[in-house]
Amino acid sequence: MTSIAELEAHAKMLEARLAKYEASGPSREKIVQMSSEVVDSNPYSRLMALKRMGIVDDYEAIRGYTVVVVGVGGVGSVTAEMLTRCGIGKLILFDYDKVEMANMNRLFFQPHQAGMSKVEAAARTLQFINPDVEFETYNYNITTVENFNHFMDILRTKSLTQGPVDLVLSCVDNFEARMAINTACNELGQVWMESGVSENAVSGHIQLIRPGETACFGCAPPLVVAANIDEKTLKREGVCAASLPTTMGIVAGLLVQNTLKFLLKFGDVSHYLGYNALQDFFPTMAMKPNPQCDDSFCRKRQEEFQEAESRKPKVEAVAVEEKAVIHEDNEWGISLVAEDHQDKQEDQKSPELTQGVKLAYTIPKQRTPSSGEDVSVSDEMSLDDLMQRMKAL
Amino acid sequence: MTSIAELEAHAKMLEARLAKYEASGPSREKIVQMSSEVVDSNPYSRLMALKRMGIVDDYEAIRGYTVVVVGVGGVGSVTAEMLTRCGIGKLILFDYDKVEMANMNRLFFQPHQAGMSKVEAAARTLQFINPDVEFETYNYNITTVENFNHFMDILRTKSLTQGPVDLVLSCVDNFEARMAINTACNELGQVWMESGVSENAVSGHIQLIRPGETACFGCAPPLVVAANIDEKTLKREGVCAASLPTTMGIVAGLLVQNTLKFLLKFGDVSHYLGYNALQDFFPTMAMKPNPQCDDSFCRKRQEEFQEAESRKPKVEAVAVEEKAVIHEDNEWGISLVAEDHQDKQEDQKSPELTQGVKLAYTIPKQRTPSSGEDVSVSDEMSLDDLMQRMKAL
Repeated sequence: MTSIAELEAHAKMLEARLAKYEASGPSREKIVQMSSEVVDSNPYSRLMALKRMGIVDDYEAIRGYTVVVVGVGGVGSVTAEMLTRCGIGKLILFDYDKVEMANMNRLFFQPHQAGMSKVEAAARTLQFINPDVEFETYNYNITTVENFNHFMDILRTKSLTQGPVDLVLSCVDNFEARMAINTACNELGQVWMESGVSENAVSGHIQLIRPGETACFGCAPPLVVAANIDEKTLKREGVCAASLPTTMGIVAGLLVQNTLKFLLKFGDVSHYLGYNALQDFFPTMAMKPNPQCDDSFCRKRQEEFQEAESRKPKVEAVAVEEKAVIHEDNEWGISLVAEDHQDKQEDQKSPELTQGVKLAYTIPKQRTPSSGEDVSVSDEMSLDDLMQRMKAL
Repeated sequence: MTSIAELEAHAKMLEARLAKYEASGPSREKIVQMSSEVVDSNPYSRLMALKRMGIVDDYEAIRGYTVVVVGVGGVGSVTAEMLTRCGIGKLILFDYDKVEMANMNRLFFQPHQAGMSKVEAAARTLQFINPDVEFETYNYNITTVENFNHFMDILRTKSLTQGPVDLVLSCVDNFEARMAINTACNELGQVWMESGVSENAVSGHIQLIRPGETACFGCAPPLVVAANIDEKTLKREGVCAASLPTTMGIVAGLLVQNTLKFLLKFGDVSHYLGYNALQDFFPTMAMKPNPQCDDSFCRKRQEEFQEAESRKPKVEAVAVEEKAVIHEDNEWGISLVAEDHQDKQEDQKSPELTQGVKLAYTIPKQRTPSSGEDVSVSDEMSLDDLMQRMKAL
């Protein structure tokens, strides 16, 4: 015969399981302070162990950070889940799409969520996974004028201390949304990271953009890892792109790993990291901003950065970086700096880092070559071709 | 005061509501044949698009394959979810652990599952995500004698056609379980893939093992990507290792990507692919088996492989591969073949592929050097050191 205590325990367990789907109640009490205690009941023990292992100095600092995720699809949803499980302070999600059964080939969303808005479905699941994280969601398209202004306001004022957010992650799948994020971040001087997965599902990339210091999204055509197929790794609207949970999970993992390194100050933060699934190669590089960038705020940030740099005392690290810059005043202002983390060898510029990396788009507007030479960039021109033509000048 | 009848009624109501989401009821009707139709309701449209994109010839073939996942933790659970969402034919899961709150810093498991066995919690979620996949779970430790024999039987007979499974994925976190899988797969001639994440959470690897053709787990100490910290990337029992959802998600993604390439025959299947998160580098290499391997079944498989190879007509591809082999009869039988997917250049052996890669363990038993030279391998010896000492002979 079943006792009242047993029945109560049974009901409690059912309620907890149900909460996952119908969630209003939290899955556990909030935790005021992260603990390093090694007990099965501590959701942060394996993260706090990063301190004992000598990887991160101050893991708890993560609770002070606010990250914006724009696009909660195959990459953005996993990105948001990883940050949630890591105990990020605040997550702000933007999307205007609904969950569909056609999304079930990627991680995160589940069939019972079909028809719900992506941001609502995501926030509900994430809140249940980690009630310590603060969530804010916006179910709209950031590219319309009104929404764009609101988006700017959010970036400027919605950190945990009502200031600018700490990082914006672009997980969108189209050119316009990327340009909107780029425009906003250039104006605000907001650091952000770009991510993308190809239409054929077998390549992707992440890119860190520090306005004024690195190339912005408008400075140069976005780079893609071309995986034999040589155009448009970024998705075109209206095309039923292929997608894989593997590629999207890997790109989300690389994006959040770079985010953790950036926020918690460990390891080397990558400027550009590509992923080619067919051949398992991972090109890295850095790109300088284009002094003739169309975006006036990008140029302004560049001036500010140059000024700040010129006031800095010259240290050896800066000198090394400058030596690596090639073709400083080419039309695109592109300079490929092979990020060779091993011993740098003079004659070895890691050709595999650039081979296979192509341009996804050209900049819509044609520019006048800065130095009068006839350099035109065709639709299909690869970065290799571009570099060769520049060398030939 | 609550009565038993009231509590029972309450529990019954909760069960009914829960049944809507999980329980026995599926989330959707089973789909008899994968369709390429581009509609929001088709969970396979983005996978079938891989055919239109020219990546995979026959995506539907995935429904005929059976994959075993041993270890349903931070890597194994995500591995199982990715395969489920890809529509794999059958998944067989092994684990003997329970879900804990301390697992919540990795993807997949949710707080309401704490206390459930990992295989049961996983199968329930996965079945709900994709009812087309056939699941089988075993809640035991494969390293005991009795369970090991049962495990062998499963590998031998539990494919969809009652034959040997198509692939075994090792997602375990200890040496003994890896050795058990290695022993079973050597005896059965079963292809498998190894995976691992370091104790400090910032490096990992995957490795393909074809008995007789590549080094088995007993042929050579497992390789690790050392990320500055130079020992034991594989976890020791009893140590509270750090872990990150990023690293584990990336390793799972690389493992399943390699699995898809292997099963669906596209791209290059990697033999060994490492991941160093601090520096974002990804060493690749191939390892030949050790003719003096302790495992008699490994040696037997090697003989069979050599015999099969000798019967093959010599084609150019084979010749190229043989040229790349160096130090054929060194003590360990290790030969590093830089998998340079770009134009192979003579003088460029991709030093970054081996730098930073270290041995996780030495083989417990000391062996007699095969050719009489005095080659001893110390605990802390890196693969670089090893190669240098071999070159010096």
